[in-house]
Amino acid sequence: MVTIINKVLCILIYSQEEAQKIDEELFDEYAFSVDQLMELAGYSCAIAISRCYPRDLMTKDNGAVLVCCGPGNNGGDGLVCARHLKLFGYKPSIFYPKQPNKPLFNNLRLQCERMDMPFLSFFPSHPELITDSYNLVIDALFGFSFKGPARPESAVILDKLKAIQNDVPICSIDIPSGWDVENGDPDGIQPELLISLTAPKLSAKLFKGRYHYLGGRFIPKTLAQRYNLNLPPYPGTDCVVELKTQVEEPKES
Amino acid sequence: MVTIINKVLCILIYSQEEAQKIDEELFDEYAFSVDQLMELAGYSCAIAISRCYPRDLMTKDNGAVLVCCGPGNNGGDGLVCARHLKLFGYKPSIFYPKQPNKPLFNNLRLQCERMDMPFLSFFPSHPELITDSYNLVIDALFGFSFKGPARPESAVILDKLKAIQNDVPICSIDIPSGWDVENGDPDGIQPELLISLTAPKLSAKLFKGRYHYLGGRFIPKTLAQRYNLNLPPYPGTDCVVELKTQVEEPKES
Repeated sequence: MVTIINKVLCILIYSQEEAQKIDEELFDEYAFSVDQLMELAGYSCAIAISRCYPRDLMTKDNGAVLVCCGPGNNGGDGLVCARHLKLFGYKPSIFYPKQPNKPLFNNLRLQCERMDMPFLSFFPSHPELITDSYNLVIDALFGFSFKGPARPESAVILDKLKAIQNDVPICSIDIPSGWDVENGDPDGIQPELLISLTAPKLSAKLFKGRYHYLGGRFIPKTLAQRYNLNLPPYPGTDCVVELKTQVEEPKES
Repeated sequence: MVTIINKVLCILIYSQEEAQKIDEELFDEYAFSVDQLMELAGYSCAIAISRCYPRDLMTKDNGAVLVCCGPGNNGGDGLVCARHLKLFGYKPSIFYPKQPNKPLFNNLRLQCERMDMPFLSFFPSHPELITDSYNLVIDALFGFSFKGPARPESAVILDKLKAIQNDVPICSIDIPSGWDVENGDPDGIQPELLISLTAPKLSAKLFKGRYHYLGGRFIPKTLAQRYNLNLPPYPGTDCVVELKTQVEEPKES
């Protein structure tokens, strides 16, 4: 018999405003560059994905995964994640419809292109084109700065993701795209894996998927204390930690 | 009975000139930033160190380690490594006597300072001050761009490291400092751990220490092929791989 003890390992969650403030402090006070933190964040996403969806167990087209990247930093995390997945033996294809003309994003894109990852010129028109070809869809469209509603061209993509989510797992980076950062969206996409970065945002409590990971192990202790983040301890040198409802076998009496 | 089979897992090594060319290609053609690659390189060093010298087994002063950083990119790798070691629960102190006035290095230093790592204003004068206080010395003084002989102020530090190397393990990042990148230095420091970055340099074949790791898992396949790097496969999603003389138990006949 298995008893479920509702002991969520990480209950600390924070608001959109706090998330933005923490980001600013990391850059201004702790002197991190976006390149550095995006590299660590995207890397931790690739590690969490490989734990939940091991390359060896994938059945479609040599570990093919579709990475959907938005125009902001969430999309940048997705590009870094794709690059590390490629190094781990996966076969990422990238959909990146709206690329900002900034050196950081141009370079992240170039790194992927030079590593032979194809960029799709349009989103697959029929759901079967995704479900037949990809083992996993990575949603890196919108992050914690998102304010809805999504524009029509993005809403179309989100609808397409919703249409396939029961047939191919969706993995969302930081926030399920389209969700209100604090209030979620009951009609929005429902990813199977959510990778919260830095610390879970308020809407994470509405996440009902299978796996919830925390990544982005770079928060200085003093910063965590100032914001009462009370982050769960990362095991050993791991760059991710699973957040879960603990399931324990009761001792025999 | 144990038979030693001289099957070195990685035999590919390369010259100073090739190392410089590969570095240039990573930045120019593959569009990586120094921030990104230094972050991944320094992170892999921290992982290799934690494998060889687990925090829990350290006996002196809460996992105290001394990180000696030089003025170039090798010193930058050392600062990143120190930061990740701090996040892993070690207690790094940093000796960084000659800091270049560039934003990258200023920021790497600030990140460490804001995470409460002390910077030593002078190198410990007596060997006992090191051997009594630190579990490990990390040598990030000079990297693959080094051309000897070392200047007098650096030669003094290297002599001090030589004087303690039998009492406290030294871990060198990429190259044992003071060694000729291709020909080594029989009278130089002899680290117990060497972490080759990207690929081992020629002098690595003269390394006689206990552990040899390869780190810096970011080389695109096309680049590795162009330079015939023939890198050993990294296991799974690991960011380091141990390079060793395999020791195999023969099957009983």
